[in-house]
Parts: sequence; C-alpha cells; structure tokens
Amino acid sequence: MKQQRALRTRGALIRSAAETFERCGYVQAKLAEISSNAGVSVGALHFHFTNKAAVASTIEASAAEALRRAARAAQSPHMNALQRLTSVSHALAEELRGDVVARAGFHLSCHTRHRTGPDLRQEWYTCVQQLLAEAEAEDLLADHVRPEAATVSIVAATTGIEVLGDADPRWLSSAALTQFWRFILPCLAKPEVLGTVDPEFSSAPTA
Amino acid sequence: MKQQRALRTRGALIRSAAETFERCGYVQAKLAEISSNAGVSVGALHFHFTNKAAVASTIEASAAEALRRAARAAQSPHMNALQRLTSVSHALAEELRGDVVARAGFHLSCHTRHRTGPDLRQEWYTCVQQLLAEAEAEDLLADHVRPEAATVSIVAATTGIEVLGDADPRWLSSAALTQFWRFILPCLAKPEVLGTVDPEFSSAPTA
Repeated sequence: MKQQRALRTRGALIRSAAETFERCGYVQAKLAEISSNAGVSVGALHFHFTNKAAVASTIEASAAEALRRAARAAQSPHMNALQRLTSVSHALAEELRGDVVARAGFHLSCHTRHRTGPDLRQEWYTCVQQLLAEAEAEDLLADHVRPEAATVSIVAATTGIEVLGDADPRWLSSAALTQFWRFILPCLAKPEVLGTVDPEFSSAPTA
Repeated sequence: MKQQRALRTRGALIRSAAETFERCGYVQAKLAEISSNAGVSVGALHFHFTNKAAVASTIEASAAEALRRAARAAQSPHMNALQRLTSVSHALAEELRGDVVARAGFHLSCHTRHRTGPDLRQEWYTCVQQLLAEAEAEDLLADHVRPEAATVSIVAATTGIEVLGDADPRWLSSAALTQFWRFILPCLAKPEVLGTVDPEFSSAPTA
C-alpha cells in the first residue's frame, strides 16, 4: 500500500514537472511549484528526485519509451515499409498529443543545453532512414526518388509538425499529418504501390 | 563622429545579445555578459536599451526585416510563382545562415513566452500560402495538388529545417534545401512546368 502510494506520488510529480516545463521552460521551473501542483511538499519531491535535472532526465526517458513504442507498433509484417512509415508517424503524433510527459521529454531532448539522455530527433531520423531503406529494398519507391533526399524531407516536415504543434495543437492532429502524407505519397511511392498505403492509418495500439 | 560611435556600439550590443541568447537562452542571458562581450559597460548598454526585453524586441524586429527582405527579393516578375517560392526559401535560409541576429530573432519570435512582436512563423506561413495561391492561378500545380495541403507540408518542412539547423548547421545549407525541393517539386508542379523551376536558385541579392 505504502509502495503504491509512493509510485502514485512519483507519477504525479513527473506529470506536474512536465506541465511546468512546458508552461515556464526548464530554466524557470521551480521545484516548489512542481511539488505543490502534484499536491506534495518539496521534501516529498526530494525523496523521489535529487534535483530538477533528475526529474528532467526521467521525463526524457519516458519520451524515448514513447518513441520506441510507436516504432515497435509499426513493425508489423503485414504492412509494406511505406505503410509502416506513415503509421509510425501517426503513432508518434498520438503519443505526443496524448501525453504531456512525452511532449516535454521531446522538447528537453532537443535542447542540447539541458539534455541528459539520447537525442530523440536523431533517433527519429534513424527510424525514418531505416524504413525508407526497407521501402527501397521492397521496390516501393518511385523511380526519381533518392532515399537520402526523401529522409531529409520527411524528417524536416515531421519535425516541423512537432515544433509547430507546440504553439498550435492542430499541427499535431491526425488530419494535418494525413494531409501531409496525402500530398507527399504520390511523389514517394511507385504509382502501382500508392493504392496499398493508407495515409491515415495509425499503428498505435488503441488504449 | 560621436553619433557614429553610438551606432557602432548599439550594433555591437545587438549582435552580442543575439549570440548570448543563442548560447544560453533568453532567460539565462545576463546583461553583464552581453555588454562585456560587446566591449562596453552595463551602463553603456542601459544608455541604448531599458532592459533585456528591449534588446530582444530589437533583435526580433531585425529578423522580421530579414524575412521581408527575402520575400521582396522573390517578387521578380521574371519568375513564375513556384520559382519565387523555392527562391524565397533559399533567400531566407541565407539570411538565417549568415546572421546570428536573424537566427536569434526567429527563435525569440517562436517562443510565445518571450515574444514581443509579430509571430514570424505565422508570417512565413502566409508567404508560402500566398505564393502557392499564385502558382494555382498561374496553372502551375499538378492535378492532384490541393494548395492547402501543399502549404501545410512546405511550411512544416521549412520550419523543421530551420529548427534542425539550430543544432546542426548542415540542415540550413543550400544543399539540404535544394535536396528538399528536388524531392518535392515533382509532386507539386505540372510535368511541363517542372523544367522551368530551378530548385537551387536563390533570389537573395548577393552582398
């Protein structure tokens, strides 16, 4: 019972810290505000975390898990590589839309100044690059497409969507992402492959 | 002579502030550091600027000018609207690559928390939207292209390039931007228009 309560408190602190980082920025976030919004004392916060950097590091780890969860969900052998690519992007957007901890972790991981763990944008780049290499191996790409240029363009656009979604949540919506894929797929996929890729499909496991 | 020196000092302070904001972030930037890196006293800084927000506001205004300069340079009547679109993006990337003040101003204008002036990303959105509407009116767009989806995709990708260029300057290079346009133009332009658009051309006036 006591352990369960400790876990609940820890979760509330992580969530409160993520909300505070998103609202005020990491630098200006105060431990007193984080603990009071979680309904506990600063002493209780210090029982779970040595300092602000330790909370941030836990939040980043949670965002890294969200990214890997999205990537795993897209590993289905029943989909071709382009469908895996579009659906991993939807799954990741869903993680970011639904979870302030994932969002805050992504933002922290992009500011080299505060980052403690892996660079999640770099990890996303590698994920897109890998899926496009598989798409090439599966002979899905239109003739003029160079996988490297496609990787740069898709990583740029999805990163832009993530960043713009920060100020205006409509950017991170399923509709905006679908609009992007509908526009880009005709220049990415061979004409005969186009019909096999659903630009709206998300591989995120429905909660 | 005295006035010239005052202008030089003001310029040095703006540049030093932009560098400090880029290195430490706006919140952590210290006036003492900004003035000492500009080779003057904090008193001299206060002669030109009331506070940190006033310097930031000047930097944002300078970034807004850079964006408008790039947009103006792309208004040539000798180019079709798609060529104007690709070349305004190159011109803007050149402004951002070459000038820490433009970069810092763009970043400041994107953080609603510190913003004092116009939202430059919104202004960029309007610029892209306008050029794509002109491209449609000039009958340059491929049949399946909806200008709204193209605007969303191109703004997302160029914003991503700007943000990623923050951590790794290669993203803001002319080569990366050209790679993006080479990939995207075949799905944007009518086949017979494609040959009339040079994905590398920049309308930036050579300094």
